Amino acid sequence: MQRRTFLRTASFTALGLSALVGSDTYSKSFFFGNNLKVNEQRIANRIMELAKFGVDDKGRGYRVAYTKGDIEGRAWFMEQMKKAGLEPVIDAAGNIIGKRKGNNPALKPIAFGSHIDMVPDGGNYDGTLGSIGALEVIEVFNEQKVITEHPLEVIIFANEEGGTIGSMAMAGHLTAEGLQQKSQSGLTMAEGIRAIGGNPDNIQSCIRKKGDLRAWIELHIEQGGILEKETIQIGVVEGIVGIVHWIVTVEGFANHAGTTPMNMRRDALLAASKFILAVNEVANSVKGNQVATVGKMALQPGAYNVIPGKVELGLEIRDLSSDKIEMLFTEMEKRAAAIARETKTKISFERQANAALPALTNKTLQQTINTSAKELGFTTKFMQSGAGHDSQEIAKIAPVAMIFIPSVGGISHSPKEFSTPKDMANGANVLLQSILAVDKDKN
Amino acid sequence: MQRRTFLRTASFTALGLSALVGSDTYSKSFFFGNNLKVNEQRIANRIMELAKFGVDDKGRGYRVAYTKGDIEGRAWFMEQMKKAGLEPVIDAAGNIIGKRKGNNPALKPIAFGSHIDMVPDGGNYDGTLGSIGALEVIEVFNEQKVITEHPLEVIIFANEEGGTIGSMAMAGHLTAEGLQQKSQSGLTMAEGIRAIGGNPDNIQSCIRKKGDLRAWIELHIEQGGILEKETIQIGVVEGIVGIVHWIVTVEGFANHAGTTPMNMRRDALLAASKFILAVNEVANSVKGNQVATVGKMALQPGAYNVIPGKVELGLEIRDLSSDKIEMLFTEMEKRAAAIARETKTKISFERQANAALPALTNKTLQQTINTSAKELGFTTKFMQSGAGHDSQEIAKIAPVAMIFIPSVGGISHSPKEFSTPKDMANGANVLLQSILAVDKDKN
Repeated sequence: MQRRTFLRTASFTALGLSALVGSDTYSKSFFFGNNLKVNEQRIANRIMELAKFGVDDKGRGYRVAYTKGDIEGRAWFMEQMKKAGLEPVIDAAGNIIGKRKGNNPALKPIAFGSHIDMVPDGGNYDGTLGSIGALEVIEVFNEQKVITEHPLEVIIFANEEGGTIGSMAMAGHLTAEGLQQKSQSGLTMAEGIRAIGGNPDNIQSCIRKKGDLRAWIELHIEQGGILEKETIQIGVVEGIVGIVHWIVTVEGFANHAGTTPMNMRRDALLAASKFILAVNEVANSVKGNQVATVGKMALQPGAYNVIPGKVELGLEIRDLSSDKIEMLFTEMEKRAAAIARETKTKISFERQANAALPALTNKTLQQTINTSAKELGFTTKFMQSGAGHDSQEIAKIAPVAMIFIPSVGGISHSPKEFSTPKDMANGANVLLQSILAVDKDKN
Repeated sequence: MQRRTFLRTASFTALGLSALVGSDTYSKSFFFGNNLKVNEQRIANRIMELAKFGVDDKGRGYRVAYTKGDIEGRAWFMEQMKKAGLEPVIDAAGNIIGKRKGNNPALKPIAFGSHIDMVPDGGNYDGTLGSIGALEVIEVFNEQKVITEHPLEVIIFANEEGGTIGSMAMAGHLTAEGLQQKSQSGLTMAEGIRAIGGNPDNIQSCIRKKGDLRAWIELHIEQGGILEKETIQIGVVEGIVGIVHWIVTVEGFANHAGTTPMNMRRDALLAASKFILAVNEVANSVKGNQVATVGKMALQPGAYNVIPGKVELGLEIRDLSSDKIEMLFTEMEKRAAAIARETKTKISFERQANAALPALTNKTLQQTINTSAKELGFTTKFMQSGAGHDSQEIAKIAPVAMIFIPSVGGISHSPKEFSTPKDMANGANVLLQSILAVDKDKN
């Protein structure tokens, strides 16, 4: 079925735009393919303009959700939306939504966008590219007088970095308990939502039901180094990985490091080190894109002259398949049991409640993006997203797709995060063509 | 030479005490060996009495040097000394010194004792056994009217656990800078010394010159599990290990744990784990009693979803030979270089300034202790002390010896620290007989 859709989408694209109005220029391209192109310079300029909001006194980015920088950045973005003829509204969760009418109001909206909040000391591209790229598509449509058949919605989700809060609310999964959690800003989610103009008391009003949107397409930087390493221009995202966290506790016996011979020790750190190597080996033992990380560690008592008696680790496994995550974890558990026996320690696992299920993108939309990119002459790669995104939540209520562009050095969540203007424009052009391709399909 | 001395000491012991006065009972033992015995119950009772001082509101021992518990414990101890006819004085470093005259005032004093301060949340035997054991020897001498040829000194060193401060001062190595360092009590060493009745302004007055003391003998719990494991009653300490500390810094690259494939990572924690295994392997690769420990670790940034970019470790190596410590470290450095290449990280070492040189005990005194123990029917083992002791400092100015008794479970610096009354009495009996044996040698 997906294959059939692919062929149909491709043939439509070959015929050109179905919904151009009042323009000789585009009546030509109607039959021979449109030549709509985003403005690379405008994208690059707007990235830099938005980067000015939320800079702290050390010059680092601090546009953390619900803080002053976020509020100012959002105001600037809404101003740009207004200038582009979108009438932005803030929903109950604080998401900014700018609508553009289509020729056929009976059709469901095609939505696209991303987020503009950032992690503390983060970079200027994560989220902002998809937001400014979405705005750029509108600018080009305005300039070239393109009116799509479907209504369009540019959505800037609130507090993505703090747990995809805005999109979670839109998908109907933000609970009363979730609203009371503390955000990075120091405010609770409810207080933060209020600070950016939302209404946590009526959070249900922002919910979109399954089927309300025709599609959600998110342009984003890869945040990894695969595209750059393989010199590929466009990543077609097959899905967003599931994430499971465990607290791993290694219990040995704290004793005097001077008086306890090597062969009488029950060293929790030695056992933990063996386990960290085992995690790495298990993650590398099977084909695929799974990743496993020990990123946290605390040991007790923590002195030069005391053999560590207890170590706590944070273990994370990510993959597109929940089954694979469980298979890898089972193997790690087995390895841990052997290490515990060998080192006379006890190793236990506590699965954390915050597991994120894998979210697959829509296969038809994947092909639409791939075809659009190929027709623009770009190299493409089907790949997973190792990072979480709002698309993960929206996948519960609508067909979603994501377009990745290269991150220089694979660096993200860092002031060193960078993508070239050329790559950003490539991604926005793929977004634009993909929207037009979806628009041709009269669903 | 040591062998000759050993024979001489042994034959003197066979002849019995050379310095008994006014007692028919002991004129008998003069020829057939003395039967002086410490009072096991009195030792056990005094351990429990001293344990009452410095208990915090959670019931844990907190007789940390210079704090209320230490001050009260010292007052109690001096009271016991007075009752035993010693006239305790406090020297400029806060050490408590109780003297007992000998028959020959021209001879140099035989000194013995230990310390009564403890680590936070420590146990009731570390230091206190040697202190109460020394007092017990005096009690028995009083009861049995023994007057030695040499003058005797019971010394209770101040702030052993905070860096052998009292003995360091007596050996002439406590600097003006050292006096300004903060102690565990929160006070500087100078303030602490003043709090326990010393005089930091005249610290030089407590210095003993090389040759001032005939010997220093310290009875102590093993603080390790070797004697218990091998069911040996008395450890004859050959020396106190040298200790060198290094800060080991592992630098990788912090990156997104979801978007960075396994083969593109520069994981500082993975490299650190390999190094910890290498430290253990190198320490176990050669014969001997050397120990190497990684007891401290901190990683950055320390989140589930970020590959650790930097790890700092605390590495400690201990051995009786400085050469061996250096040899082991050189091998660990080599292994680190290979790990750094393999993991694309950088591993660097910063040697800490607080290195303690190994301190060997006096070989003649070792034999004296061994012979005394054997004649009492005890099994013995020549062994090293993996922990630091005041004897380490006093070895710079006098012949020193240490007597170890078993620690149940090898546990120390813990409320679970325990030695049986029987083992404590055994150790005190060996101390008593060793003092008498040294006393026979008219030096």
